[in-house]
Amino acid sequence: MRYLITVEYDGSAYAGWQSQKNAVAVQDVLNAALSDLFSEDIKTEGSGRTDSGVSAKGQTAHFDAEKAIDPEKIPFAVNTRLPYDIRVLTAKTVSDDFHARYSVKKKTYVYKFYVSRILSPTRRKTHAQLVPPVDFELMKDAARDLIGTHDFAGFSSTGSHITNTVRTLSYVNLEQSGDEITLTLTGDGFLYNMVRIIAGTLAFIGKGKLPPSSVRSVLETKNRKLAGKTYPPEGLCLVKVEYI
Amino acid sequence: MRYLITVEYDGSAYAGWQSQKNAVAVQDVLNAALSDLFSEDIKTEGSGRTDSGVSAKGQTAHFDAEKAIDPEKIPFAVNTRLPYDIRVLTAKTVSDDFHARYSVKKKTYVYKFYVSRILSPTRRKTHAQLVPPVDFELMKDAARDLIGTHDFAGFSSTGSHITNTVRTLSYVNLEQSGDEITLTLTGDGFLYNMVRIIAGTLAFIGKGKLPPSSVRSVLETKNRKLAGKTYPPEGLCLVKVEYI
Repeated sequence: MRYLITVEYDGSAYAGWQSQKNAVAVQDVLNAALSDLFSEDIKTEGSGRTDSGVSAKGQTAHFDAEKAIDPEKIPFAVNTRLPYDIRVLTAKTVSDDFHARYSVKKKTYVYKFYVSRILSPTRRKTHAQLVPPVDFELMKDAARDLIGTHDFAGFSSTGSHITNTVRTLSYVNLEQSGDEITLTLTGDGFLYNMVRIIAGTLAFIGKGKLPPSSVRSVLETKNRKLAGKTYPPEGLCLVKVEYI
Repeated sequence: MRYLITVEYDGSAYAGWQSQKNAVAVQDVLNAALSDLFSEDIKTEGSGRTDSGVSAKGQTAHFDAEKAIDPEKIPFAVNTRLPYDIRVLTAKTVSDDFHARYSVKKKTYVYKFYVSRILSPTRRKTHAQLVPPVDFELMKDAARDLIGTHDFAGFSSTGSHITNTVRTLSYVNLEQSGDEITLTLTGDGFLYNMVRIIAGTLAFIGKGKLPPSSVRSVLETKNRKLAGKTYPPEGLCLVKVEYI
């Protein structure tokens, strides 16, 4: 039986989603809890990786199990076996050809900034700091250039094995509320560090460290060096993964 | 010279604002940093206490120092001596008869809930959980009963030395956004645990554990037992202290 679960986690204590050597990943903790619940060795397959320190409100993963457990009972049963910084929100059964990563239609990420000269103690684990002056309208205009189908190679870190770097962003929004700026991106897929580099590029444009045309330049030239720095993981959250 | 500072802190690691035996309070850490900066023994006087685990975006405190330091330079200079969970946001000089507590005109607190059957890992340190079903309209109606001048004795925990328990709430607002509910209260003063007991009472009304008239009953009878439980400190934040 194949199961699909949605998972929320506070990534601050983990070396990212994906299992790796010499560090504890969210997936390790989840696999252990599920294995204990199903009394068999469970290996989850996530919708994709999230970096060390990145949180998720709606990560998804599938896994196969011999044992059949009523999906409605899985969240409660597995959550009693998990630490407070990881929770399974929903579970359902899916067909055997469903794949948490390959079947993805859309993903939505949110990146949150606060604008302040001084570090904000209450937001230091959930937002990235933007030291003023920041021109929000410049950032908003530049964000519009991201919408649509582009080769996002210039907005990705090297070290990935992916060869097709064309992605479609169907929704891009930048919103200001008080001293906070929230970037929301929905796309059919995201390259390694893509959202954090986009966040850094918009931040640099807002601060006048990069010209307003930088998003267009990076898309056209695919040159990572024309983009801003990879912004910190704390501001990033994977909020939704959609399959239809 | 008397100085007034505003302070933001993440209260999760501290035994509250106020110095006490056998535990580290925000005030202890702040006094040490200021004493180091001014090279003399500095003792801050806060606008009031915040409980263990409660955060503040706009706590205020005054202190006297022999040495004169340009107030504009104080935040940066003291912040380099503070841990990341405490930051001085602003500083200015005030007259010697100004008092951070006695001169207060208004304080604003925010209490944040999220509505979910499952604990939210990403909000467990900033919001209180409300397990559904929750009737938001009942909560909102009950919140309106708080506005104005009342004897709030029934909304306070015993153990306080205060004899006058009459306070005026000039602004009360309850807002719903997605799965979150935010309570904002502005008043001329707040009794011990008052916001957390109000939050607990509104929560119990929303969940049908207390009748909708409970706020009125508690105000009329001053009976703590008719109110809801003292809700957890994580949801609470002191956002603003005003002196004019």
